[in-house]
Amino acid sequence: MLNLSSTQKAYLAGFLDGDGSIYVRLKPNTDYKYGFQVAPYVILFQSSKERKKFEKVCSLIGLGYIRERKDRILEYTIGREKAIKFFLKMVIPYLILKKKQAILTLEILDMKMKIKNKNDFQALMNKIDIFRNLNYSKKRKKHVLTS
Amino acid sequence: MLNLSSTQKAYLAGFLDGDGSIYVRLKPNTDYKYGFQVAPYVILFQSSKERKKFEKVCSLIGLGYIRERKDRILEYTIGREKAIKFFLKMVIPYLILKKKQAILTLEILDMKMKIKNKNDFQALMNKIDIFRNLNYSKKRKKHVLTS
Repeated sequence: MLNLSSTQKAYLAGFLDGDGSIYVRLKPNTDYKYGFQVAPYVILFQSSKERKKFEKVCSLIGLGYIRERKDRILEYTIGREKAIKFFLKMVIPYLILKKKQAILTLEILDMKMKIKNKNDFQALMNKIDIFRNLNYSKKRKKHVLTS
Repeated sequence: MLNLSSTQKAYLAGFLDGDGSIYVRLKPNTDYKYGFQVAPYVILFQSSKERKKFEKVCSLIGLGYIRERKDRILEYTIGREKAIKFFLKMVIPYLILKKKQAILTLEILDMKMKIKNKNDFQALMNKIDIFRNLNYSKKRKKHVLTS
């Protein structure tokens, strides 16, 4: 990641607010201690017609990768925790639409570092469920540890 | 329009690049001297689920109006020439994806002020046709004055 100016950070905040997404998913995965992988994402979207210029925007960030979906939408995904923390801390001061999601993601990643037992993990799951309301998802299923 | 800081201008540039549109339309209209109205637009889009926060973004600009489309997408439209000039001059230094469209729009509005005859208007129409390539429109019909 380049050393960005305050206006470059504000630009990226505007881009993320306009056409981006911030969320944390709980992926069922028995390889993980509590049966779920905690997967945070920051994604920027753009039509593939604008690939070159979109690459220029993404190169400012330099923390993720671009993939093209079947519907020809480009997605620039930041998936590594360290990269997400770094990026979100940088844009949070300028975010308007997605500030809550950004703060919540940082809180979740902090909680995740401190998990010691099942109760801690359940608390983390509850916090992740808040995204369902913030992002207006239609799926409002609550996550509960059963075992 | 409020007196914006450089980071607010950069934020709006990012928002416009992420989820906005800049273009000039030629609307056939016999009320006008050369048979066409020259109609420039700057539009920001957002899901109507985010209306409150989107209104906050739009209030930074304060030059247009919000309407809700039937598909529940909100459009914030800046349509007055003076407002468009003011807004574009402000965000151009920070635009990446839509910088060409912004500069072209300002050039078109300048040309429009100086029109003296049919030839001038035809030149203006040719310039407006450049948008069809920039914005990857499928309609590539060229505009020609026939009368």
